[in-house]
Amino acid sequence: MNPGLSRRKFIASAAVSMVPSAVAMAQPKGKGLMAMLAGETSAAAPKETLKADWKDAGVIDLSNSPYAKLKTVPIRAVRIKDGFWAQRRKTNITSSIPSMHDELLAHGRMDNFLRLQGKSTEPQKGPVYSDSDIYKWTEAVGFQLQNNDQSELRRTTDTMIREVVAVQEPSGYLNTYFNGDRKPLRMQYDTQTTGHELYCIGHMLQGAIAYYRATGDPTLLDAGIRFVNDFLIPNYGPGANQKEIVSGHPEIEMSLIELSRTTGDRRYVDLAGYILHGDPRIPLRPQQIVYMYCGIPFTSRTKLEGHAVRCMYACCGATDYYLETGDQAYWKTLNMLWDDLNAHQLYVTGGVGARAAGEAFGDAYELPNAQAYGESCAAIGNMMWNWRMLSATGDAKFTDVMERALYNGINSGMSLDGTTYCYRNPLAFDPSGESRDRHLVDGKIRNAWYDTTCCPPNLERTFASLSGYFYSTSQDGVYVHLYDNSEMNWHLNDGTPVKVAQETNYPWSGDVKITVSPAKPGEFVMYVRVPGWSKKNSVKVNGKEFAGAKPGEYLAIRRQWAENDTIDLSFDMTTHLLKANPAVTEDRGRVAFQRGPIVFCMEHLDQADHNAGMNLAGYIVRLDGETTTHFEPELLNGVMMLSHPAMLSDISSDTGLYFSAATPKPKETATTIRLIPYYAWANRDPASMQVWIPYRDA
Amino acid sequence: MNPGLSRRKFIASAAVSMVPSAVAMAQPKGKGLMAMLAGETSAAAPKETLKADWKDAGVIDLSNSPYAKLKTVPIRAVRIKDGFWAQRRKTNITSSIPSMHDELLAHGRMDNFLRLQGKSTEPQKGPVYSDSDIYKWTEAVGFQLQNNDQSELRRTTDTMIREVVAVQEPSGYLNTYFNGDRKPLRMQYDTQTTGHELYCIGHMLQGAIAYYRATGDPTLLDAGIRFVNDFLIPNYGPGANQKEIVSGHPEIEMSLIELSRTTGDRRYVDLAGYILHGDPRIPLRPQQIVYMYCGIPFTSRTKLEGHAVRCMYACCGATDYYLETGDQAYWKTLNMLWDDLNAHQLYVTGGVGARAAGEAFGDAYELPNAQAYGESCAAIGNMMWNWRMLSATGDAKFTDVMERALYNGINSGMSLDGTTYCYRNPLAFDPSGESRDRHLVDGKIRNAWYDTTCCPPNLERTFASLSGYFYSTSQDGVYVHLYDNSEMNWHLNDGTPVKVAQETNYPWSGDVKITVSPAKPGEFVMYVRVPGWSKKNSVKVNGKEFAGAKPGEYLAIRRQWAENDTIDLSFDMTTHLLKANPAVTEDRGRVAFQRGPIVFCMEHLDQADHNAGMNLAGYIVRLDGETTTHFEPELLNGVMMLSHPAMLSDISSDTGLYFSAATPKPKETATTIRLIPYYAWANRDPASMQVWIPYRDA
Repeated sequence: MNPGLSRRKFIASAAVSMVPSAVAMAQPKGKGLMAMLAGETSAAAPKETLKADWKDAGVIDLSNSPYAKLKTVPIRAVRIKDGFWAQRRKTNITSSIPSMHDELLAHGRMDNFLRLQGKSTEPQKGPVYSDSDIYKWTEAVGFQLQNNDQSELRRTTDTMIREVVAVQEPSGYLNTYFNGDRKPLRMQYDTQTTGHELYCIGHMLQGAIAYYRATGDPTLLDAGIRFVNDFLIPNYGPGANQKEIVSGHPEIEMSLIELSRTTGDRRYVDLAGYILHGDPRIPLRPQQIVYMYCGIPFTSRTKLEGHAVRCMYACCGATDYYLETGDQAYWKTLNMLWDDLNAHQLYVTGGVGARAAGEAFGDAYELPNAQAYGESCAAIGNMMWNWRMLSATGDAKFTDVMERALYNGINSGMSLDGTTYCYRNPLAFDPSGESRDRHLVDGKIRNAWYDTTCCPPNLERTFASLSGYFYSTSQDGVYVHLYDNSEMNWHLNDGTPVKVAQETNYPWSGDVKITVSPAKPGEFVMYVRVPGWSKKNSVKVNGKEFAGAKPGEYLAIRRQWAENDTIDLSFDMTTHLLKANPAVTEDRGRVAFQRGPIVFCMEHLDQADHNAGMNLAGYIVRLDGETTTHFEPELLNGVMMLSHPAMLSDISSDTGLYFSAATPKPKETATTIRLIPYYAWANRDPASMQVWIPYRDA
Repeated sequence: MNPGLSRRKFIASAAVSMVPSAVAMAQPKGKGLMAMLAGETSAAAPKETLKADWKDAGVIDLSNSPYAKLKTVPIRAVRIKDGFWAQRRKTNITSSIPSMHDELLAHGRMDNFLRLQGKSTEPQKGPVYSDSDIYKWTEAVGFQLQNNDQSELRRTTDTMIREVVAVQEPSGYLNTYFNGDRKPLRMQYDTQTTGHELYCIGHMLQGAIAYYRATGDPTLLDAGIRFVNDFLIPNYGPGANQKEIVSGHPEIEMSLIELSRTTGDRRYVDLAGYILHGDPRIPLRPQQIVYMYCGIPFTSRTKLEGHAVRCMYACCGATDYYLETGDQAYWKTLNMLWDDLNAHQLYVTGGVGARAAGEAFGDAYELPNAQAYGESCAAIGNMMWNWRMLSATGDAKFTDVMERALYNGINSGMSLDGTTYCYRNPLAFDPSGESRDRHLVDGKIRNAWYDTTCCPPNLERTFASLSGYFYSTSQDGVYVHLYDNSEMNWHLNDGTPVKVAQETNYPWSGDVKITVSPAKPGEFVMYVRVPGWSKKNSVKVNGKEFAGAKPGEYLAIRRQWAENDTIDLSFDMTTHLLKANPAVTEDRGRVAFQRGPIVFCMEHLDQADHNAGMNLAGYIVRLDGETTTHFEPELLNGVMMLSHPAMLSDISSDTGLYFSAATPKPKETATTIRLIPYYAWANRDPASMQVWIPYRDA
């Protein structure tokens, strides 16, 4: 079966037979798809019905996207086996998703829906974007159910979805915040810039699509379609009789395009394009245009700026728009913005958004460490954007950024036990510093709940969908992007079933054995990614050296493949001491340690002197020293630990804030520093942490 | 005459004879002092009348403050002669004060007052605190008129004051913003936290007092008294029938205490104490308590935090409160906060408030350079606070901070031609960096106007009042705080007239000749300040060595003084290369240059390679090099320029954001860097600037 060629229309009876419980439970009051299922006619029904091949869609569905060089592989087609990510993903489903469900309920996020049905007397709870918490969690569930059917989780979520759609108004409008006294504020100018109505609907659509692709149940999706078809499209847009849209927090753009991919309705792409272009009828202040990353043509942007998550989500939407339209003005802009990211704005952890003020990108090279914002959501947005850029091109430079973000600045966002989360992901931390950081609760950087709880379900949906990021297909073969024990059961673009299996101890080891098994022998290309950090590489096909591997590129292995052919990859796991561009002032005179995709950090707990104080400022890396590695199976769920020769400078005596450069240097003693993976920091007692470590005395 | 002993009550007829034009012009509608002058009786009239010795008050009037060890000397008693500050002060009066007047009018700040009288149809202009712009400018004029009578400036200001007082309401309320639709918002809870009503009145009182001390004209002061007596005191305070006050932007505290010093009415001190204590009836969020630096007892504070200007003004008010009450809980708190300032929060320029976000103090040691906020107003607040701490103690550590702020982080705030101003005062700058700084207009850090124009008139009032900061008197003598060509004609606390004159080329030279001429010979102490930066000092009295000078202390010279006795001071003008505490991450591996009180910086314009690029990142100071100095009379109104051996590293080739530490070092060539005083930066073409210069390669 080739899903790119054989597309069936969604048949009502099929949907009923496939999702009986959902249909029985859902009692939509509007006129969307569910109404159509019930035999009603509706002028506002979707122009095209949902695709029936809902099981074949990937994280995003690029099967029909004309400018996608790579096609996504369904989450359910890839099984991640025991190894690095399986552990994290098990925690995600056994701990994070259930505990976040309870947190959401405890903080009234579902009461907001129940109240409008008269089922709760609780007042509205949470900030203006609180509905999105439910939707993003639903998306995590949707992705999880694409991995595994879990009937209890499904029942819970079905019930929640029923309560959500029950409050949709006949107009299609759905938002629990703008009710009662706030009803007149709906879609007003100020509400659009700060009220997150379309942001919430965007997350609803993403959640609904993921849930639909998991279950075939269109209940939530139908409500989303009715919002767009009945409420949004007739009333808002560029037409003379339509009102303006300003995308106060970009998110709706990429979800509208995914909705188009899901329904075949092209109007959603056009609407996304209208939003990305900005409506010139709306007067915005320059600061709003910067902060919201919207309101002027996306194609007029020349740099990343403003609120980092808004900016990343806008870039995702713009790349999705390019994937559907091939608009070269978008493509040029996206590449210019990516160059800005890579040259000026990317933390070594893959995090982005340096400034706490406005949760924003800073100036070029403004990458502070202790003050780094590096919101988990922004790192996720970065990965999502690079995934789309990769899909457009097959260029491994985008995968390098994805991997950097995933293993470090995203993975750090969730505690190892899966119950607490970082909102910020700084690259240095001092628990004794009495930080003024509002995301620290009682001095803790990891917390179970934030009233703005965007990051936790965002992390959950990312880990739940991870198997969808491992592979792609192209016109001529299969791309292998990420490495871990896994098995893909999918097919080439011509429909030939193919199985690709990996055996590896990645990221601790650089050796990966890939077994390629097409259903029948044939010529195609296996594109295996050579990470940018791996400077010396060996590739063997069926035991024979295969030349041409270059760091930061996909190695194309074109040949006749037959069952159980093997590719043996061996990447260079030398620990690299990295320097930053001298313009990054806080990193000057410092190095960061990276081994494979993993960026390391010092936690004071692991240092020999950790009982003597809480300050890491005295350590000085010896650049002439050799790093040694040692796997610690019992530590932090099993991590590679690095050791490196250093000096410890006796700077405990108070020098005052400023002192003469002629002051004799403090005494230095030889020592060895120990480093753990950055993602695992702050999982023990509070301790100082630093990624960038001085190699020169102060 | 001893003003501390001989106090006359203010006599109405005297006021009339002294300020005929003001009385003739002013037509107050309320029931304050002016009404009393007109023969009306009023229950709300001040409890005590204004002091008649208005000519004898200093910048603040400590003559009757029981806990002030030092007494201020009137501005008019000190003449600053040709030299470093005379030039700046001449610019202030010939250029800054007049041009700011025109800017204020051009931006509708007076129209706001005219509109309420039906004399203007312009809508309200400017932010909520716009009235304070007029008041702070009036204070600058008041101080200036204490230096010199300038009839045209006086006439202009008299007219403006007349328009201001004309809009005072019968209740005593006066604020142009909270009118019309906004009238119901007056003094509401949210308005108090963000509306700046009492902040505006605080500045009005300060302006009114300065103007009164210049002219004896109580027109504006009378309106201020009516606001406090008629509107504030009866309705607001701790009483069961009174409403709460929260000081959303501290300022009212110190002005109420100065009002008490001016009128003798003790109720104003009590009201300030109530405000500084915070009203427990008001529920504030923790972030508000941090940001506003109010709302909880001032005495419960343990560190500087929140909005830097708010925090500094609160500290000023609290110190004023201590000076009047001797409350030891305040004194302990103030010293703890000062230690926090000195150990963790003070830029080498004397600026404070590291963060743009919330214009706020950062964490301890959070002192970024390019991203430094260092608002001009915060540096001024720092100086005002240290002036009060100095007055309480006579401890030179406070004068060291004052001097550091004055010569550097304050002086940098105004362009050399006096027409443009820095809002932020960063310690590094790159005009090609496309900064996201909202205070940059077309890439320029100095601008003639900001819609929040707090800094320009704040700088103007500081320079206009500068002569009041040079000297103090104490029980047993005279303190000399600041050095410049000047002449004080004042008297000892016992009433003996004394003249103290300085001849010097300070701050370029460390030699100061002081001539002491009491009206009759007698024993007293001349306390001459030995700056903390001067490590080797020579002091001669009438040509003979006088021992005991210690850096950072006042040298007490107790002897029989007679006419034309001389003190010859010689301070150590060696250029110091300073390092910062290693915890200041951005300064690590860098040095700053300081010579005398002046902190220096590199501007790219002055470097040999300035045509080759705009980036200073390649310069590396040689710590083994000798600094040479050269006075440049034609450059930047005449500055000392420093030259120092350095290496120039060829880092123009793009290394990418991160690269291997094993990468060979770029080529280095020997060069000489040239430095100008920091205060003079950004007065030529846009250029990169840095105060902290690497002494190690990256």
